Order: sequence, then C-alpha cells, then structure tokens
Amino acid sequence: MSELTIWTYDWVPEGPRGFVRDLRLRWACEEADLPYAVRTIPFDDRETNHLAHQPFGQVPFLGDGQVEIFESGAGLLHLARKSEKLLPRDSVGEAETLQWTVAALSSIEMVTVPWWFLKISGDEDNGLAGWMGKRLDQLENILSEREWLAADRFTAADLLMADVLRVPLVRSFGNRPASEAYVTRVTDRPAFRKARADQIAHFEAADEKRL
Amino acid sequence: MSELTIWTYDWVPEGPRGFVRDLRLRWACEEADLPYAVRTIPFDDRETNHLAHQPFGQVPFLGDGQVEIFESGAGLLHLARKSEKLLPRDSVGEAETLQWTVAALSSIEMVTVPWWFLKISGDEDNGLAGWMGKRLDQLENILSEREWLAADRFTAADLLMADVLRVPLVRSFGNRPASEAYVTRVTDRPAFRKARADQIAHFEAADEKRL
Repeated sequence: MSELTIWTYDWVPEGPRGFVRDLRLRWACEEADLPYAVRTIPFDDRETNHLAHQPFGQVPFLGDGQVEIFESGAGLLHLARKSEKLLPRDSVGEAETLQWTVAALSSIEMVTVPWWFLKISGDEDNGLAGWMGKRLDQLENILSEREWLAADRFTAADLLMADVLRVPLVRSFGNRPASEAYVTRVTDRPAFRKARADQIAHFEAADEKRL
Repeated sequence: MSELTIWTYDWVPEGPRGFVRDLRLRWACEEADLPYAVRTIPFDDRETNHLAHQPFGQVPFLGDGQVEIFESGAGLLHLARKSEKLLPRDSVGEAETLQWTVAALSSIEMVTVPWWFLKISGDEDNGLAGWMGKRLDQLENILSEREWLAADRFTAADLLMADVLRVPLVRSFGNRPASEAYVTRVTDRPAFRKARADQIAHFEAADEKRL
C-alpha cells in the first residue's frame, strides 16, 4: 500500500486547534490502523499558496499514491473504502454509512456552520437558528433510539457526525441529552483522543518555530 | 439488476417544480441508462409521515433491492458506482469525481442554500453574501480553465455542481461568465432535459387529482 499523506497547515492560532479538519482524516486512519504521514503547507497566504491542491485554499487534502483528494468528507469516504472498520462490506450497511456520512455534511453541517459563522460574525440571533434547532431535534430523535447511526456499529458516519456536533457552539445550542451522550461516546474513542492530541501537539510545536 | 425506485412527493406547489431533488436521481439514471420507477409519498404531513424512510421528512430516497438510501448526494454516489458514465473507473478519475461531488455539497451548497434561505425569509442582505461571493469566485476561476470538474469529462460531480448552481437566485448573484456557460452546458444535456420535463409533468398531473 502506498503511504497516505494528510496535508494540513504548518500552524494555526490557538482557537481552532483540535478542530482543524485534518483531524477527520487522522482519526479515520487511527480507527482503521492505516499508516499515514502528516505534511504541511503554509498557513500564511493560504488562500493563494496552494490553490493547485485545494481550490478553496483550505485543508486537509489527502495524498494516496497517484491520487490526491480534497474535501474532508471525500477524503473520509476514500479512506473508509480501505477498511471494514469504517465502512461495512455488506450493501445495506454500506448504503447506511454513505447516507449518514452525507447527512452529516448536507443536513446537519449545512446549517450548523453557516449558523455559527453568522453568530461569531456578530449576528447572534440569526435567521438560521430555527432551522438548526429543527434539524438537531430530528437528529436527537434518531439518537434517542440507537447508539450508532448506521449498521448498529461505529462507522465513518459516526466519526463525521460527531465531529460536526462536537463544536462547542453547536453543543451548547439547546439541551439534547441523547446527542450529547452520543458525542461523548464517539469522542471518547482512543482513536479520536490520539488524533486530537496529535493535532494539538503539531500546532503547539509550530509556535516555537514561529516566534 | 433489481429495479431502482426513486421516491418523491405526490405533489408540490408550482414554485419548486423542476428543482425538487428527486431530479438529481432521475437525471443520474437517465445519464447512465439505468431503468427506474418513480413512486410517491404524500406531500401533506411530510414532516411526520415518512420519518422511517427519511429522518428529516424530505425527498428523495432511493430503493435498490434490499438497499434504501436517503440524501440526494448519497443516492447520487450510490448510482454513480453502477455506471462508468457517472464515475470513471480509474483511481484518479474516481477520486476527482468524489472530491468534486462532495465539494458541490460542502463548499458550495453549504453556503448557497443557507444564503437563499435567509434571503427568501426576508433577510435580503444577509451575512452569508460575502462568503458566497468568495466561494463562487473561486469556482469561477476553476471553471474558466476547464470544461468539466473531474477527469476531463462529464461526471456525477458536474451533475451535482450544476444542480447547485442553476438555482435562479444563485445564478443571478453576480456576473460569472464561465460558471454561467458551465450551467448552460451541463443543463443542456438531453438527460437533464428529460429528467426535468418528467418531474414537472409528474407534479402537473397531480394538480388534477388534488382539485
């Protein structure tokens, strides 16, 4: 197998550490025991310096031999195909995992990210709050009835959904005990804790070089 | 092959006709020459009457033998795996198609849909306009340099990106000639025109029953 390379920034400010989306790919590799290297592109001038690799100037992107793939959701699906630990091999389990992975992006994150973007931009009580509350309530109903989103077991869909839900602003938006227990359960996995600690250490180590 | 079933509403008001997202799956089936049936669930009480099939009360969902899958993006990826016409078989072409399919959802639609949601809710000059302009400009740069997003040919990624971009409010947001030419080029495909005409005819036929 060719070595996997996860590309992230060389440094970010303290705020986003533990949340930069290379974490999704680190976590997936840790869950699936896939060896990987982490390489960096400069945070400074990020919106112009690597558009050939990522047309929106963001991270992560993933290298896998001849393949290079951006969008953390796409990278996650690419990695999931390599391991039954992330993606069940039966057609029903695979479809369930795919639908819930896309749901994390298209039905949940599509409202949570614009909502918190407006909120941190100063629009505290913005017009997305009602939509977000409805979606999170619908998800709470699902999570009240099952431990995992797909195939009665942990899959890539839980990795992504928990990563979407664990954002502190989102987590504090109303009281949804099943969703909260879900986030706690998923992020208590050793693979998440290692990936998160590694990311934070990566950016902390860069502080010294940057001084 | 088991017959594919695309589930949509039995009726919708005139406004969304031609835009309800079963169109994405109809279009994909038409491109790939996959036979399919269209079946319906009631539009009335849609937020409570089919939560077992779609937890957010939406359409479409796709039946394929034992598999049932919701989220139009997931259904599209599921269909794409059935046909080289939608998804190239080489690893690089496949990865490019996957990344741009997810980009249509996560980098473009994640801002366009919340933006027009706020706009039609009366928040004309909402705080997402800057983010949306930036993303659409980045995409315009890409589309100025190539005809198709992935693998130098039409793929599922173009189907989805064009469907995201063709929304009239989005299309009229600034002047981006390469993006406009792209939308025209992709939606001029016979498979799109047939899928759209079929959807509109489906909902029009329901008007009479509803009277």
